[in-house]
Amino acid sequence: MTYNLENAPVFTCLGGGHGLYQTLRAARAAGAGDINAVVTVADDGGSSGRLRRELSMIPPGDLRMALSALTEDSDEGVLWRSTLQHRFGGNGAMAGHAVGNLILAGLAEELGDMQLALDTVARWSGSVGRVIPVCQQPLEIEADVAGLDDDPRVLRSVRGQVAVATTPGAVRRVRLLPTAPDATPQAVEAIMAADLVTIGPGSWFSSVIPHLLVPDIVQALNATEAKVVVILNLSPEAGETHGFSTERHIHVFGQHAPELRVDYFLADSVKGPTEGERTHLRRAASGVGAAMEFRDVREAPRSGEVSTRHDPAKLAAVLLDLLRTS
Amino acid sequence: MTYNLENAPVFTCLGGGHGLYQTLRAARAAGAGDINAVVTVADDGGSSGRLRRELSMIPPGDLRMALSALTEDSDEGVLWRSTLQHRFGGNGAMAGHAVGNLILAGLAEELGDMQLALDTVARWSGSVGRVIPVCQQPLEIEADVAGLDDDPRVLRSVRGQVAVATTPGAVRRVRLLPTAPDATPQAVEAIMAADLVTIGPGSWFSSVIPHLLVPDIVQALNATEAKVVVILNLSPEAGETHGFSTERHIHVFGQHAPELRVDYFLADSVKGPTEGERTHLRRAASGVGAAMEFRDVREAPRSGEVSTRHDPAKLAAVLLDLLRTS
Repeated sequence: MTYNLENAPVFTCLGGGHGLYQTLRAARAAGAGDINAVVTVADDGGSSGRLRRELSMIPPGDLRMALSALTEDSDEGVLWRSTLQHRFGGNGAMAGHAVGNLILAGLAEELGDMQLALDTVARWSGSVGRVIPVCQQPLEIEADVAGLDDDPRVLRSVRGQVAVATTPGAVRRVRLLPTAPDATPQAVEAIMAADLVTIGPGSWFSSVIPHLLVPDIVQALNATEAKVVVILNLSPEAGETHGFSTERHIHVFGQHAPELRVDYFLADSVKGPTEGERTHLRRAASGVGAAMEFRDVREAPRSGEVSTRHDPAKLAAVLLDLLRTS
Repeated sequence: MTYNLENAPVFTCLGGGHGLYQTLRAARAAGAGDINAVVTVADDGGSSGRLRRELSMIPPGDLRMALSALTEDSDEGVLWRSTLQHRFGGNGAMAGHAVGNLILAGLAEELGDMQLALDTVARWSGSVGRVIPVCQQPLEIEADVAGLDDDPRVLRSVRGQVAVATTPGAVRRVRLLPTAPDATPQAVEAIMAADLVTIGPGSWFSSVIPHLLVPDIVQALNATEAKVVVILNLSPEAGETHGFSTERHIHVFGQHAPELRVDYFLADSVKGPTEGERTHLRRAASGVGAAMEFRDVREAPRSGEVSTRHDPAKLAAVLLDLLRTS
């Protein structure tokens, strides 16, 4: 579908963590008419993991991060953002907890529903858009990992987001526990109502792939009239995808959702691949029915060092351009 | 000073805990043009005490309670109130912490100032009025307590709000550590700008008397043109004032601030004292330069039991009446 330029487009962004944060900032920079963040719920580390275990709740950290990305740049929006993101220091019971996680935990208990809690904080903080957990219950990630044994052919099962993200072995495949969970209806609606859907960037096995393991999400991605763009990482992640090439990221993506078709894989053109590598990438992308796009989306170098983050303004311009391309 | 009926009066309410909560609800019911809550900062128990020790902050519990009392009765105000007051359950690291305490702790760290944190939550929650800590640093209460020893003449020193509030002995005198602390300028300004100042009700030794041990506060109470009304408790408190008569409450009040002059002591008339007792109470009050008022201010019985709480609407009417009396 060619996007109708007369309306501000609806962006629905799938992911988690810092990657989703940057994409949501890009969606704001693109002047999106509405923004939905569909967020992973498999984190088991840090403040999120502690609250998840103690209060039997959806881990709030990725949700809080997405809420923060959607705050306004006004004085009040910036204060909300810094408050949501504020972490207690020291070495006591509160150390490391983010205030936003605690607000979400309290509101979710008070209202009996995390979606209501998220909508409430969005309203209070004057945020643009909506943050939606991909599933209503907390999930676990389990991975088949090679290289942990003397025999490199042996696959060992590693469970938990932190364990998977930090394994010294090579992750071959991940699954969710429980398997094939139901998506929240709001997540499906957000994908169906979108003009543009983004997936990633982010920790590939713990923030991106988990979305593809929720059957309702794959079905919605195949059914929506939205353009679907997978935003590839600008650097291999330490731990879970250490040493993975961009091509391998695409292969892994396709392996975990063989029936899924997307429109674009978006890679950085500046520090990007050679012409020979580009040919391989285009071939890999076509396996998922997608075109390969090479664009300048990288943040300007900071104090001389190459950034591994996307620049929201550049990413916004590219996403709008892809949206307008028929 | 006779109060000018043309303007909505400014109420400044001194106290802490549930007693202050009811007085602030009364101030709202009275249609106050502005409300200031000047709040004790000596709590060392529960969620407040844990945060005070862990984060080296002013104990937030009494401040949170006052903020909650000032929320609007709209849907949004009620949701803010229940969120601020929400306590985590279970038996983990978060158990017993009130969400509002955590928000105040985070904001105070983020903004570097508890007053700014309180003003921010008041603004966000659409509350009426302002909550002001009586001092900028956390205080400790220390009491001379009789009856802990075999020899009843022996006084022992008991330190800490919880220890004082629950001592099986008889509290004779309390002091603050550090002694004679500076009041916050905002607390002094709030007393000076008021048309009506209330003190109490509440735990006499831990929520009421501590205000009288801050020299700036006593000076402001003597200097202000506001009517100053001390609201007496409807029941002896368990622990710290167990078995204290109303007359003894007045004596203790005067003992701790001999130079202070107030306008009224307000006692309940319905379950109140006999005519003989009233004579003694009037004499006690006159020792502090005050008139004694007996009014119906008690909440209606709940399921047949006599309430020990003030009814905000009744208290509002009485306070407005005292304000209008020249």
